[in-house]
Amino acid sequence: MEAEARIEAELRAAIARATGPDCPPKFAKALEHAVFPGGARVRPKLCLAVAGACGDPHPALSSATAAALELLHCASLVHDDLPAFDGADLRRGAPSVHAVYGEPLAILAGDALIVLAFEIVARAGAAAPDRLPALMALIARSVGAPNGIAAGQAWESETEVSVETYHRAKTGALFVGATMAGALAAGADPGPWRVLGEKIGEAYQVADDLMDAMGGDEAGKPVGQDVALNRPSCARELGTDGAVAKLRSLVAEAADAVPDCPGAPMLRELVRAQAKRLVPKNLAAAAA
Amino acid sequence: MEAEARIEAELRAAIARATGPDCPPKFAKALEHAVFPGGARVRPKLCLAVAGACGDPHPALSSATAAALELLHCASLVHDDLPAFDGADLRRGAPSVHAVYGEPLAILAGDALIVLAFEIVARAGAAAPDRLPALMALIARSVGAPNGIAAGQAWESETEVSVETYHRAKTGALFVGATMAGALAAGADPGPWRVLGEKIGEAYQVADDLMDAMGGDEAGKPVGQDVALNRPSCARELGTDGAVAKLRSLVAEAADAVPDCPGAPMLRELVRAQAKRLVPKNLAAAAA
Repeated sequence: MEAEARIEAELRAAIARATGPDCPPKFAKALEHAVFPGGARVRPKLCLAVAGACGDPHPALSSATAAALELLHCASLVHDDLPAFDGADLRRGAPSVHAVYGEPLAILAGDALIVLAFEIVARAGAAAPDRLPALMALIARSVGAPNGIAAGQAWESETEVSVETYHRAKTGALFVGATMAGALAAGADPGPWRVLGEKIGEAYQVADDLMDAMGGDEAGKPVGQDVALNRPSCARELGTDGAVAKLRSLVAEAADAVPDCPGAPMLRELVRAQAKRLVPKNLAAAAA
Repeated sequence: MEAEARIEAELRAAIARATGPDCPPKFAKALEHAVFPGGARVRPKLCLAVAGACGDPHPALSSATAAALELLHCASLVHDDLPAFDGADLRRGAPSVHAVYGEPLAILAGDALIVLAFEIVARAGAAAPDRLPALMALIARSVGAPNGIAAGQAWESETEVSVETYHRAKTGALFVGATMAGALAAGADPGPWRVLGEKIGEAYQVADDLMDAMGGDEAGKPVGQDVALNRPSCARELGTDGAVAKLRSLVAEAADAVPDCPGAPMLRELVRAQAKRLVPKNLAAAAA
Protein backbone atom coordinates (compact mmCIF):
# COMPACT_ATOMS: atom_id res chain seq x y z
CA MET A 1 0.00 0.00 0.00
CA GLU A 2 1.21 3.51 -0.73
CA ALA A 3 2.27 5.62 2.24
CA GLU A 4 -0.69 7.95 1.90
CA ALA A 5 -3.20 5.11 1.91
CA ARG A 6 -1.48 3.42 4.86
CA ILE A 7 -1.62 6.63 6.89
CA GLU A 8 -5.29 7.36 6.12
CA ALA A 9 -6.30 3.76 6.84
CA GLU A 10 -4.46 3.80 10.16
CA LEU A 11 -5.95 7.15 11.15
CA ARG A 12 -9.45 5.94 10.16
CA ALA A 13 -9.03 2.83 12.29
CA ALA A 14 -7.76 4.88 15.24
CA ILE A 15 -10.65 7.37 15.08
CA ALA A 16 -13.13 4.51 14.64
CA ARG A 17 -11.78 2.96 17.85
CA ALA A 18 -11.97 6.25 19.78
CA THR A 19 -15.48 7.03 18.59
CA GLY A 20 -16.83 3.55 19.24
CA PRO A 21 -19.91 2.60 21.29
CA ASP A 22 -20.55 4.84 24.33
CA CYS A 23 -18.62 7.80 22.89
CA PRO A 24 -20.62 11.02 23.38
CA PRO A 25 -21.95 11.81 19.85
CA LYS A 26 -20.76 15.42 19.61
CA PHE A 27 -17.37 14.41 20.97
CA ALA A 28 -17.09 11.72 18.32
CA LYS A 29 -17.76 14.32 15.64
CA ALA A 30 -15.19 16.68 17.16
CA LEU A 31 -12.54 13.94 17.11
CA GLU A 32 -13.32 13.14 13.50
CA HIS A 33 -13.27 16.83 12.58
CA ALA A 34 -9.84 17.26 14.19
CA VAL A 35 -8.27 14.61 11.96
CA PHE A 36 -10.29 14.57 8.70
CA PRO A 37 -9.88 15.92 6.13
CA GLY A 38 -6.19 16.16 6.83
CA GLY A 39 -3.51 18.58 5.78
CA ALA A 40 -0.44 17.37 3.92
CA ARG A 41 0.24 14.60 6.52
CA VAL A 42 3.90 15.61 6.22
CA ARG A 43 5.11 14.13 9.51
CA PRO A 44 3.64 10.64 9.06
CA LYS A 45 4.86 10.55 5.44
CA LEU A 46 8.34 11.45 6.61
CA CYS A 47 8.16 8.76 9.29
CA LEU A 48 7.11 6.09 6.79
CA ALA A 49 9.72 7.23 4.27
CA VAL A 50 12.46 6.76 6.88
CA ALA A 51 11.02 3.42 8.00
CA GLY A 52 10.93 2.34 4.35
CA ALA A 53 14.52 3.43 3.78
CA CYS A 54 15.45 1.24 6.79
CA GLY A 55 13.69 -1.83 5.36
CA ASP A 56 10.39 -1.51 7.28
CA PRO A 57 10.24 -5.08 8.65
CA HIS A 58 7.18 -4.34 10.85
CA PRO A 59 4.83 -2.24 8.71
CA ALA A 60 2.03 -2.43 11.28
CA LEU A 61 4.29 -0.78 13.85
CA SER A 62 5.60 1.90 11.49
CA SER A 63 2.08 2.69 10.27
CA ALA A 64 0.85 3.07 13.85
CA THR A 65 3.87 5.23 14.70
CA ALA A 66 3.25 7.46 11.68
CA ALA A 67 -0.44 7.82 12.52
CA ALA A 68 0.40 8.55 16.16
CA LEU A 69 2.62 11.45 15.11
CA GLU A 70 -0.21 12.85 13.00
CA LEU A 71 -2.72 12.47 15.87
CA LEU A 72 -0.32 14.35 18.14
CA HIS A 73 0.09 17.04 15.49
CA CYS A 74 -3.69 17.33 15.11
CA ALA A 75 -4.06 17.55 18.91
CA SER A 76 -1.57 20.41 19.02
CA LEU A 77 -3.45 22.24 16.26
CA VAL A 78 -6.80 21.86 18.02
CA HIS A 79 -5.38 23.31 21.24
CA ASP A 80 -3.32 25.93 19.38
CA ASP A 81 -6.49 27.26 17.75
CA LEU A 82 -8.24 27.81 21.11
CA PRO A 83 -9.09 31.35 22.19
CA ALA A 84 -6.41 31.11 24.91
CA PHE A 85 -3.81 30.78 22.12
CA ASP A 86 -4.32 31.90 18.53
CA GLY A 87 -8.09 32.14 18.75
CA ALA A 88 -8.24 30.88 15.16
CA ASP A 89 -11.68 30.13 13.78
CA LEU A 90 -10.21 28.60 10.61
CA ARG A 91 -7.91 25.63 10.15
CA ARG A 92 -7.09 23.95 6.83
CA GLY A 93 -9.64 26.26 5.24
CA ALA A 94 -12.49 24.95 7.41
CA PRO A 95 -13.88 26.03 10.79
CA SER A 96 -11.55 24.99 13.64
CA VAL A 97 -12.74 22.39 16.17
CA HIS A 98 -13.59 24.91 18.89
CA ALA A 99 -15.42 27.12 16.37
CA VAL A 100 -17.78 24.24 15.58
CA TYR A 101 -17.97 22.25 18.82
CA GLY A 102 -17.04 24.78 21.50
CA GLU A 103 -14.07 25.11 23.80
CA PRO A 104 -14.81 22.23 26.19
CA LEU A 105 -14.99 19.61 23.43
CA ALA A 106 -11.95 21.10 21.69
CA ILE A 107 -9.88 20.84 24.87
CA LEU A 108 -11.08 17.27 25.46
CA ALA A 109 -10.56 16.29 21.82
CA GLY A 110 -6.92 17.35 22.04
CA ASP A 111 -6.51 15.35 25.24
CA ALA A 112 -8.13 12.25 23.77
CA LEU A 113 -6.05 12.44 20.58
CA ILE A 114 -2.85 12.51 22.65
CA VAL A 115 -4.01 9.44 24.55
CA LEU A 116 -5.08 7.72 21.33
CA ALA A 117 -1.64 8.27 19.80
CA PHE A 118 0.06 6.32 22.58
CA GLU A 119 -2.68 3.69 22.57
CA ILE A 120 -2.28 2.78 18.90
CA VAL A 121 1.51 2.50 19.16
CA ALA A 122 1.19 0.33 22.27
CA ARG A 123 -1.25 -1.99 20.52
CA ALA A 124 0.82 -2.27 17.35
CA GLY A 125 3.91 -2.86 19.48
CA ALA A 126 2.64 -6.25 20.61
CA ALA A 127 4.42 -7.72 17.56
CA ALA A 128 7.79 -6.23 18.59
CA PRO A 129 7.51 -5.27 22.28
CA ASP A 130 11.27 -4.90 22.73
CA ARG A 131 11.12 -1.72 20.67
CA LEU A 132 8.23 -0.15 22.56
CA PRO A 133 10.05 1.45 25.53
CA ALA A 134 12.47 3.45 23.38
CA LEU A 135 9.88 4.17 20.68
CA MET A 136 7.21 5.47 23.04
CA ALA A 137 9.70 7.48 25.10
CA LEU A 138 10.96 9.07 21.88
CA ILE A 139 7.45 9.99 20.74
CA ALA A 140 6.70 11.38 24.21
CA ARG A 141 9.83 13.54 24.19
CA SER A 142 8.80 15.09 20.89
CA VAL A 143 5.47 16.37 22.22
CA GLY A 144 5.82 16.87 25.98
CA ALA A 145 8.11 18.76 28.35
CA PRO A 146 10.85 19.96 28.47
CA ASN A 147 11.66 19.81 24.73
CA GLY A 148 8.50 18.86 22.83
CA ILE A 149 5.57 20.72 21.29
CA ALA A 150 3.84 21.57 24.57
CA ALA A 151 7.02 23.11 25.97
CA GLY A 152 7.58 24.97 22.70
CA GLN A 153 4.12 26.46 22.85
CA ALA A 154 4.70 27.34 26.51
CA TRP A 155 7.61 29.61 25.52
CA GLU A 156 4.93 32.00 24.21
CA SER A 157 4.04 32.72 27.87
CA GLU A 158 7.60 33.73 28.80
CA THR A 159 9.01 37.24 28.61
CA GLU A 160 12.56 36.14 27.75
CA VAL A 161 12.68 33.61 24.94
CA SER A 162 15.46 31.95 23.00
CA VAL A 163 13.99 31.88 19.49
CA GLU A 164 16.05 28.82 18.64
CA THR A 165 14.88 26.85 21.68
CA TYR A 166 11.30 27.95 21.01
CA HIS A 167 11.28 26.82 17.38
CA ARG A 168 13.23 23.64 18.08
CA ALA A 169 10.58 22.57 20.57
CA LYS A 170 7.43 23.94 18.93
CA THR A 171 8.10 22.85 15.36
CA GLY A 172 11.36 20.90 15.19
CA ALA A 173 10.72 18.31 17.87
CA LEU A 174 7.95 16.47 16.03
CA PHE A 175 9.98 16.32 12.80
CA VAL A 176 12.91 14.88 14.74
CA GLY A 177 10.39 12.51 16.31
CA ALA A 178 9.18 11.54 12.83
CA THR A 179 12.60 10.61 11.43
CA MET A 180 13.92 8.96 14.59
CA ALA A 181 10.69 7.08 15.36
CA GLY A 182 10.51 5.91 11.75
CA ALA A 183 13.98 4.41 12.14
CA LEU A 184 13.20 2.91 15.55
CA ALA A 185 9.94 1.37 14.36
CA ALA A 186 11.97 -0.32 11.62
CA GLY A 187 14.49 -1.63 14.14
CA ALA A 188 17.28 0.74 13.04
CA ASP A 189 19.49 2.98 15.17
CA PRO A 190 17.59 6.31 15.40
CA GLY A 191 20.64 8.48 16.21
CA PRO A 192 21.84 9.07 12.61
CA TRP A 193 18.35 10.25 11.62
CA ARG A 194 18.20 13.19 14.03
CA VAL A 195 19.82 15.81 11.78
CA LEU A 196 17.45 15.07 8.90
CA GLY A 197 14.49 15.77 11.20
CA GLU A 198 16.10 18.92 12.55
CA LYS A 199 16.77 20.37 9.09
CA ILE A 200 13.28 19.59 7.81
CA GLY A 201 11.82 21.08 10.98
CA GLU A 202 13.80 24.28 10.48
CA ALA A 203 12.71 24.43 6.86
CA TYR A 204 9.08 24.06 7.89
CA GLN A 205 9.42 26.79 10.47
CA VAL A 206 10.80 29.17 7.84
CA ALA A 207 8.01 28.13 5.46
CA ASP A 208 5.43 28.68 8.18
CA ASP A 209 6.79 32.15 8.91
CA LEU A 210 6.70 32.95 5.20
CA MET A 211 3.13 31.75 4.81
CA ASP A 212 2.02 33.68 7.86
CA ALA A 213 3.66 36.82 6.48
CA MET A 214 2.58 36.37 2.84
CA GLY A 215 -0.67 34.48 3.14
CA GLY A 216 0.17 31.45 1.02
CA ASP A 217 -3.07 29.86 -0.09
CA GLU A 218 -2.01 26.55 1.47
CA ALA A 219 -2.25 27.98 4.95
CA GLY A 220 -6.03 27.91 5.28
CA LYS A 221 -5.71 29.91 8.49
CA PRO A 222 -5.60 33.57 9.45
CA VAL A 223 -2.66 35.59 8.09
CA GLY A 224 -0.38 37.93 10.02
CA GLN A 225 -0.69 36.11 13.36
CA ASP A 226 3.07 36.30 14.06
CA VAL A 227 3.09 40.08 13.89
CA ALA A 228 -0.28 40.35 15.63
CA LEU A 229 0.90 38.13 18.48
CA ASN A 230 4.46 39.52 18.41
CA ARG A 231 5.97 36.09 17.83
CA PRO A 232 9.51 35.69 16.51
CA SER A 233 9.49 35.15 12.74
CA CYS A 234 12.28 34.38 10.31
CA ALA A 235 10.39 36.27 7.58
CA ARG A 236 10.44 39.40 9.75
CA GLU A 237 14.14 39.02 10.56
CA LEU A 238 15.50 38.13 7.12
CA GLY A 239 12.93 39.66 4.80
CA THR A 240 11.03 37.60 2.24
CA ASP A 241 13.93 36.95 -0.16
CA GLY A 242 16.28 36.11 2.71
CA ALA A 243 13.78 33.69 4.17
CA VAL A 244 13.20 31.95 0.82
CA ALA A 245 16.98 31.59 0.35
CA LYS A 246 17.31 30.15 3.86
CA LEU A 247 14.50 27.70 3.13
CA ARG A 248 16.23 26.43 -0.02
CA SER A 249 19.52 26.04 1.80
CA LEU A 250 17.90 24.09 4.64
CA VAL A 251 16.27 21.71 2.17
CA ALA A 252 19.65 21.04 0.56
CA GLU A 253 21.16 20.39 3.99
CA ALA A 254 18.27 18.06 4.80
CA ALA A 255 18.84 15.99 1.64
CA ASP A 256 22.56 15.79 2.49
CA ALA A 257 21.69 14.67 6.02
CA VAL A 258 19.96 11.45 4.88
CA PRO A 259 22.19 8.67 6.30
CA ASP A 260 23.58 6.09 3.89
CA CYS A 261 21.15 3.17 3.66
CA PRO A 262 19.49 1.16 0.87
CA GLY A 263 16.69 3.69 0.49
CA ALA A 264 18.82 6.84 0.74
CA PRO A 265 18.72 8.01 -2.93
CA MET A 266 14.93 7.69 -3.08
CA LEU A 267 14.55 9.49 0.24
CA ARG A 268 16.85 12.38 -0.80
CA GLU A 269 14.74 12.81 -3.94
CA LEU A 270 11.56 12.80 -1.83
CA VAL A 271 12.92 15.50 0.48
CA ARG A 272 13.75 17.74 -2.47
CA ALA A 273 10.38 17.11 -4.12
CA GLN A 274 8.37 17.77 -0.95
CA ALA A 275 10.38 20.92 -0.37
CA LYS A 276 8.90 22.50 -3.48
CA ARG A 277 5.56 22.56 -1.68
CA LEU A 278 7.08 24.68 1.06
CA VAL A 279 7.68 27.89 -0.84
CA PRO A 280 4.44 29.90 -1.01
CA LYS A 281 3.20 29.79 -4.62
CA ASN A 282 3.25 33.54 -5.04
CA LEU A 283 6.98 33.55 -4.17
CA ALA A 284 8.13 30.42 -6.00
CA ALA A 285 8.52 32.06 -9.43
CA ALA A 286 10.15 35.24 -8.18
CA ALA A 287 12.72 33.54 -5.95
CA ALA A 288 13.45 30.47 -8.10
CA MET B 1 9.49 1.62 50.80
CA GLU B 2 5.93 2.43 51.81
CA ALA B 3 3.43 3.00 49.03
CA GLU B 4 3.11 6.70 49.79
CA ALA B 5 6.86 7.28 49.63
CA ARG B 6 7.16 5.25 46.41
CA ILE B 7 4.44 7.30 44.76
CA GLU B 8 5.88 10.67 45.80
CA ALA B 9 9.40 9.65 44.76
CA GLU B 10 8.18 8.49 41.37
CA LEU B 11 6.14 11.66 40.83
CA ARG B 12 9.12 13.82 41.89
CA ALA B 13 11.37 12.00 39.41
CA ALA B 14 8.78 12.38 36.63
CA ILE B 15 8.30 16.11 37.22
CA ALA B 16 12.07 16.59 37.50
CA ARG B 17 12.45 14.98 34.07
CA ALA B 18 9.69 17.10 32.52
CA THR B 19 11.03 20.34 33.99
CA GLY B 20 14.65 19.67 33.04
CA PRO B 21 16.99 21.94 31.07
CA ASP B 22 15.29 24.02 28.36
CA CYS B 23 11.86 23.85 29.98
CA PRO B 24 10.22 27.30 29.97
CA PRO B 25 10.49 28.46 33.63
CA LYS B 26 6.83 29.38 34.19
CA PHE B 27 5.74 26.16 32.53
CA ALA B 28 8.01 24.18 34.86
CA LYS B 29 6.35 25.86 37.84
CA ALA B 30 2.89 25.15 36.43
CA LEU B 31 3.73 21.45 36.02
CA GLU B 32 5.04 21.29 39.58
CA HIS B 33 1.97 23.14 40.88
CA ALA B 34 -0.35 20.68 39.13
CA VAL B 35 1.13 17.68 40.97
CA PHE B 36 2.45 19.00 44.32
CA PRO B 37 1.26 19.13 47.00
CA GLY B 38 -1.00 16.25 46.10
CA GLY B 39 -4.43 15.20 47.24
CA ALA B 40 -5.00 11.80 48.79
CA ARG B 41 -3.22 10.00 45.90
CA VAL B 42 -6.04 7.46 46.08
CA ARG B 43 -5.65 6.01 42.58
CA PRO B 44 -1.90 5.30 42.73
CA LYS B 45 -2.29 3.85 46.25
CA LEU B 46 -5.02 1.55 44.98
CA CYS B 47 -2.83 0.54 42.05
CA LEU B 48 0.11 -0.32 44.29
CA ALA B 49 -2.12 -2.14 46.77
CA VAL B 50 -3.37 -4.39 43.98
CA ALA B 51 0.15 -4.88 42.59
CA GLY B 52 1.31 -5.77 46.10
CA ALA B 53 -1.54 -8.24 46.57
CA CYS B 54 -0.40 -9.88 43.32
CA GLY B 55 3.22 -10.22 44.51
CA ASP B 56 4.63 -7.09 42.80
CA PRO B 57 7.62 -8.74 41.08
CA HIS B 58 8.56 -5.56 39.14
CA PRO B 59 8.20 -2.69 41.63
CA ALA B 60 9.75 -0.17 39.22
CA LEU B 61 6.98 -0.90 36.71
CA SER B 62 4.17 -0.81 39.28
CA SER B 63 5.52 2.45 40.78
CA ALA B 64 5.65 4.05 37.33
CA THR B 65 2.15 2.78 36.54
CA ALA B 66 0.80 4.18 39.82
CA ALA B 67 2.48 7.55 39.23
CA ALA B 68 1.20 7.63 35.66
CA LEU B 69 -2.38 7.23 36.87
CA GLU B 70 -1.88 10.12 39.27
CA LEU B 71 -0.36 12.32 36.54
CA LEU B 72 -3.37 11.58 34.34
CA HIS B 73 -5.69 12.40 37.24
CA CYS B 74 -3.84 15.68 37.86
CA ALA B 75 -4.04 16.51 34.13
CA SER B 76 -7.79 15.98 34.19
CA LEU B 77 -8.14 18.25 37.24
CA VAL B 78 -6.07 21.03 35.64
CA HIS B 79 -8.26 20.96 32.52
CA ASP B 80 -11.46 20.45 34.54
CA ASP B 81 -10.75 23.66 36.47
CA LEU B 82 -10.43 25.77 33.30
CA PRO B 83 -12.99 28.52 32.66
CA ALA B 84 -14.41 26.44 29.79
CA PHE B 85 -15.41 23.77 32.36
CA ASP B 86 -15.85 24.42 36.08
CA GLY B 87 -13.98 27.74 36.10
CA ALA B 88 -12.66 26.79 39.54
CA ASP B 89 -10.06 29.11 41.03
CA LEU B 90 -9.40 26.73 43.90
CA ARG B 91 -8.17 23.14 43.93
CA ARG B 92 -7.02 21.21 46.98
CA GLY B 93 -7.45 24.40 48.97
CA ALA B 94 -4.92 26.31 46.84
CA PRO B 95 -5.26 28.41 43.67
CA SER B 96 -5.83 26.21 40.61
CA VAL B 97 -3.17 26.08 37.89
CA HIS B 98 -4.95 28.44 35.50
CA ALA B 99 -5.66 30.88 38.34
CA VAL B 100 -1.90 31.22 38.97
CA TYR B 101 -0.34 30.65 35.54
CA GLY B 102 -3.11 31.54 33.11
CA GLU B 103 -5.15 29.48 30.69
CA PRO B 104 -2.48 28.80 28.05
CA LEU B 105 -0.03 27.23 30.51
CA ALA B 106 -2.83 25.31 32.23
CA ILE B 107 -3.94 23.78 28.93
CA LEU B 108 -0.34 22.92 28.02
CA ALA B 109 0.41 21.57 31.50
CA GLY B 110 -2.47 19.12 31.19
CA ASP B 111 -1.21 18.05 27.77
CA ALA B 112 2.34 17.56 29.00
CA LEU B 113 1.22 15.59 32.05
CA ILE B 114 -0.71 13.18 29.82
CA VAL B 115 2.38 12.70 27.67
CA LEU B 116 4.60 12.30 30.75
CA ALA B 117 2.35 9.57 32.13
CA PHE B 118 2.88 7.40 29.06
CA GLU B 119 6.57 8.27 28.95
CA ILE B 120 7.32 7.04 32.47
CA VAL B 121 5.47 3.76 31.97
CA ALA B 122 7.28 3.19 28.66
CA ARG B 123 10.65 3.79 30.30
CA ALA B 124 9.93 1.57 33.29
CA GLY B 125 8.62 -1.11 30.94
CA ALA B 126 12.08 -1.76 29.52
CA ALA B 127 12.50 -4.36 32.29
CA ALA B 128 9.35 -6.24 31.23
CA PRO B 129 8.49 -5.10 27.68
CA ASP B 130 6.09 -7.99 27.04
CA ARG B 131 3.66 -6.37 29.46
CA LEU B 132 3.79 -2.92 27.90
CA PRO B 133 1.30 -3.26 25.03
CA ALA B 134 -1.56 -4.42 27.25
CA LEU B 135 -0.59 -2.17 30.15
CA MET B 136 -0.35 1.01 28.10
CA ALA B 137 -3.51 0.23 26.14
CA LEU B 138 -5.34 -0.30 29.42
CA ILE B 139 -4.13 2.99 30.85
CA ALA B 140 -5.08 4.76 27.61
CA ARG B 141 -8.59 3.30 27.67
CA SER B 142 -9.13 4.64 31.17
CA VAL B 143 -8.46 8.27 30.19
CA GLY B 144 -9.27 8.65 26.48
CA ALA B 145 -12.24 7.99 24.20
CA PRO B 146 -14.74 6.37 24.03
CA ASN B 147 -14.85 5.22 27.69
CA GLY B 148 -12.22 7.15 29.66
CA ILE B 149 -12.08 10.43 31.57
CA ALA B 150 -12.05 12.70 28.50
CA ALA B 151 -15.15 11.00 27.09
CA GLY B 152 -16.80 11.19 30.51
CA GLN B 153 -16.17 14.91 30.71
CA ALA B 154 -17.44 15.29 27.14
CA TRP B 155 -20.86 13.97 28.19
CA GLU B 156 -21.35 17.36 29.90
CA SER B 157 -21.65 18.88 26.41
CA GLU B 158 -24.51 16.57 25.39
CA THR B 159 -28.19 17.26 25.86
CA GLU B 160 -29.15 13.61 26.40
CA VAL B 161 -26.95 11.84 28.91
CA SER B 162 -26.99 8.42 30.51
CA VAL B 163 -25.91 9.23 34.05
CA GLU B 164 -24.44 5.77 34.46
CA THR B 165 -22.33 6.00 31.29
CA TYR B 166 -21.25 9.51 32.28
CA HIS B 167 -20.08 8.54 35.78
CA ARG B 168 -18.53 5.28 34.62
CA ALA B 169 -16.31 7.17 32.19
CA LYS B 170 -15.63 10.37 34.13
CA THR B 171 -14.91 8.83 37.54
CA GLY B 172 -15.04 5.05 37.32
CA ALA B 173 -12.69 4.46 34.40
CA LEU B 174 -9.53 5.59 36.21
CA PHE B 175 -10.35 3.47 39.27
CA VAL B 176 -10.85 0.46 37.03
CA GLY B 177 -7.58 1.45 35.37
CA ALA B 178 -5.91 1.55 38.79
CA THR B 179 -6.94 -1.94 39.87
CA MET B 180 -6.46 -3.60 36.49
CA ALA B 181 -3.16 -1.85 35.69
CA GLY B 182 -1.87 -2.72 39.17
CA ALA B 183 -2.55 -6.37 38.42
CA LEU B 184 -1.07 -6.17 34.91
CA ALA B 185 2.08 -4.40 36.12
CA ALA B 186 2.53 -7.30 38.54
CA GLY B 187 2.11 -9.83 35.75
CA ALA B 188 -1.33 -11.02 36.94
CA ASP B 189 -4.54 -11.41 34.94
CA PRO B 190 -6.30 -8.01 35.18
CA GLY B 191 -9.82 -9.31 34.45
CA PRO B 192 -10.77 -10.38 38.00
CA TRP B 193 -9.78 -6.93 39.31
CA ARG B 194 -12.30 -4.95 37.24
CA VAL B 195 -15.24 -5.13 39.66
CA LEU B 196 -13.16 -3.84 42.58
CA GLY B 197 -12.25 -0.75 40.54
CA GLU B 198 -15.85 -0.26 39.44
CA LYS B 199 -17.22 -0.42 42.99
CA ILE B 200 -14.59 1.94 44.39
CA GLY B 201 -15.21 4.32 41.48
CA GLU B 202 -18.94 4.33 42.20
CA ALA B 203 -18.28 4.92 45.89
CA TYR B 204 -16.04 7.88 45.05
CA GLN B 205 -18.65 9.33 42.76
CA VAL B 206 -21.25 9.19 45.55
CA ALA B 207 -18.71 10.70 47.97
CA ASP B 208 -17.92 13.45 45.48
CA ASP B 209 -21.61 14.26 45.04
CA LEU B 210 -22.02 14.36 48.83
CA MET B 211 -19.03 16.65 49.31
CA ASP B 212 -20.21 18.95 46.56
CA ALA B 213 -23.66 19.10 48.14
CA MET B 214 -22.53 19.36 51.78
CA GLY B 215 -19.18 21.09 51.49
CA GLY B 216 -17.00 18.48 53.21
CA ASP B 217 -13.86 20.23 54.37
CA GLU B 218 -11.70 17.81 52.40
CA ALA B 219 -12.94 19.15 49.10
CA GLY B 220 -10.85 22.30 48.97
CA LYS B 221 -12.87 23.45 46.00
CA PRO B 222 -16.06 25.42 45.42
CA VAL B 223 -19.27 23.92 46.81
CA GLY B 224 -22.57 23.49 45.01
CA GLN B 225 -21.08 23.12 41.53
CA ASP B 226 -23.33 20.17 40.63
CA VAL B 227 -26.51 22.16 41.21
CA ALA B 228 -24.98 25.31 39.70
CA LEU B 229 -23.92 23.44 36.57
CA ASN B 230 -27.02 21.21 36.57
CA ARG B 231 -24.97 18.02 36.68
CA PRO B 232 -26.49 14.70 37.72
CA SER B 233 -25.80 14.04 41.40
CA CYS B 234 -26.56 11.04 43.58
CA ALA B 235 -26.97 13.34 46.60
CA ARG B 236 -29.73 15.21 44.79
CA GLU B 237 -31.47 12.00 43.72
CA LEU B 238 -31.27 10.01 46.95
CA GLY B 239 -31.00 12.72 49.58
CA THR B 240 -28.09 12.91 52.02
CA ASP B 241 -29.00 9.87 54.14
CA GLY B 242 -29.73 7.79 51.08
CA ALA B 243 -26.42 8.74 49.50
CA VAL B 244 -24.47 7.91 52.67
CA ALA B 245 -26.19 4.52 52.87
CA LYS B 246 -25.39 3.84 49.21
CA LEU B 247 -21.76 4.78 49.84
CA ARG B 248 -21.47 2.31 52.72
CA SER B 249 -23.06 -0.45 50.69
CA LEU B 250 -20.69 0.17 47.73
CA VAL B 251 -17.68 -0.03 50.05
CA ALA B 252 -18.88 -3.38 51.37
CA GLU B 253 -19.35 -4.61 47.80
CA ALA B 254 -15.86 -3.37 46.92
CA ALA B 255 -14.28 -5.29 49.80
CA ASP B 256 -16.19 -8.41 48.72
CA ALA B 257 -14.97 -7.92 45.14
CA VAL B 258 -11.28 -8.34 46.04
CA PRO B 259 -10.25 -11.54 44.22
CA ASP B 260 -8.72 -14.35 46.24
CA CYS B 261 -4.94 -13.91 46.32
CA PRO B 262 -2.21 -13.92 48.97
CA GLY B 263 -2.76 -10.24 49.79
CA ALA B 264 -6.57 -10.30 49.73
CA PRO B 265 -7.30 -9.97 53.50
CA MET B 266 -4.94 -7.00 53.82
CA LEU B 267 -6.43 -5.35 50.74
CA ARG B 268 -10.02 -5.83 51.96
CA GLU B 269 -9.06 -4.17 55.23
CA LEU B 270 -7.44 -1.30 53.32
CA VAL B 271 -10.58 -0.72 51.25
CA ARG B 272 -12.73 -0.52 54.38
CA ALA B 273 -10.27 1.79 56.14
CA GLN B 274 -9.91 4.15 53.18
CA ALA B 275 -13.67 4.24 52.83
CA LYS B 276 -14.02 5.98 56.18
CA ARG B 277 -12.33 8.99 54.61
CA LEU B 278 -15.07 9.16 52.02
CA VAL B 279 -17.98 10.19 54.22
CA PRO B 280 -17.87 13.96 54.79
CA LYS B 281 -16.92 14.55 58.44
CA ASN B 282 -20.08 16.48 59.25
CA LEU B 283 -22.15 13.46 58.17
CA ALA B 284 -20.06 10.62 59.59
CA ALA B 285 -21.45 10.77 63.15
CA ALA B 286 -25.10 11.27 62.18
CA ALA B 287 -25.17 8.50 59.62
CA ALA B 288 -22.94 5.96 61.40
